[in-house]
Amino acid sequence: MDAGMLEIPVGVSNRHVHLSQEHLEQLFGPGYELTIWKDLVQPGQYASKETVSVVGTKGIIENVRVLGPVRKKTQVEISRTDAFKLGLKAPIRDSGDHEGTSGCVLVGPKGMVSINSGVIIAARHIHMTPVEAGMYGLHDKDRVSVLVDGERALVFNNVLVRVNKNFALEMHVDVDEANSAWLNTGDKVTMINKNQTLCLVG
Amino acid sequence: MDAGMLEIPVGVSNRHVHLSQEHLEQLFGPGYELTIWKDLVQPGQYASKETVSVVGTKGIIENVRVLGPVRKKTQVEISRTDAFKLGLKAPIRDSGDHEGTSGCVLVGPKGMVSINSGVIIAARHIHMTPVEAGMYGLHDKDRVSVLVDGERALVFNNVLVRVNKNFALEMHVDVDEANSAWLNTGDKVTMINKNQTLCLVG
Repeated sequence: MDAGMLEIPVGVSNRHVHLSQEHLEQLFGPGYELTIWKDLVQPGQYASKETVSVVGTKGIIENVRVLGPVRKKTQVEISRTDAFKLGLKAPIRDSGDHEGTSGCVLVGPKGMVSINSGVIIAARHIHMTPVEAGMYGLHDKDRVSVLVDGERALVFNNVLVRVNKNFALEMHVDVDEANSAWLNTGDKVTMINKNQTLCLVG
Repeated sequence: MDAGMLEIPVGVSNRHVHLSQEHLEQLFGPGYELTIWKDLVQPGQYASKETVSVVGTKGIIENVRVLGPVRKKTQVEISRTDAFKLGLKAPIRDSGDHEGTSGCVLVGPKGMVSINSGVIIAARHIHMTPVEAGMYGLHDKDRVSVLVDGERALVFNNVLVRVNKNFALEMHVDVDEANSAWLNTGDKVTMINKNQTLCLVG
């Protein structure tokens, strides 16, 4: 491994929902709090025991995991496969960027919520600490390429880098991306430094 | 476009089934013949009006299109997403390579067929004529890389080349691959000549 490359473990993100406290209570009842089921790799983040149904114009997906803790804005993260099934036009967005996105209906055991926006296909991204970013000359919101080996070997270009001292090194892809590259959670991929370029020789 | 590159239209292959005449008759009745619904880009190939259900150990997928004409061996082509849903361990294979693959049950309006093998995830591949292959120094079963532009820009490595005078120039990817690269049928991708190499500079 030369100094320009960084091995990164992959986290495959299945469809999931982040809820605001207000929406959590509308779906699960007044004063409701999420129950931690499984810690995620990113510190402080967890899969809760709670699930909801996501309703679109053409379909419903049940048992969609709620991730915690609650956030300021409710956000529904799906794959393009899910978007077709639901009949929703979901754009590729960075987390939190909801302008011009579709809404949907969420159904929980105690109620329903109709959101006007917040359904996104999350842009693939790498979480890293400022120390790791510094070693590779990277800054928050830089874009890099990532090599994946194997039978479905490919290079993901245009991969967003997110830098925060509370992050753990991990690349998040959705299920479509994982399947196209034959990746599973925990597999290793290789980041190409932004100061390097993939180019054609020949 | 420099001489080393070739623009190729994409065909997104949704899950589908190729049937032998024997299995066609078991599923649809004695003497049955497929009805042409839509011609495919590859000459002589068509989507038929007929569909079957594919049954695995954990799930069923209904309305799976039968492609014609009939073949010597029945083959079920699914995505990794479908394989999870069906509960089948489908390997990535070139068409016709069924050794060590899983079977499944197919259900039609007049009967059922249990196949012992033939469920595959088709290896992404490019169809081209000998003339096109000759222009780019390629031979049947070579492997090339393919560039995809756009928001989910990536490079597919390890793409199989199939050469036959009855082919039309087209790259086939499955739905997972199309979604990961944000591709639709008819989009253009760029083949990198096998005499060129993608390499790191910096």
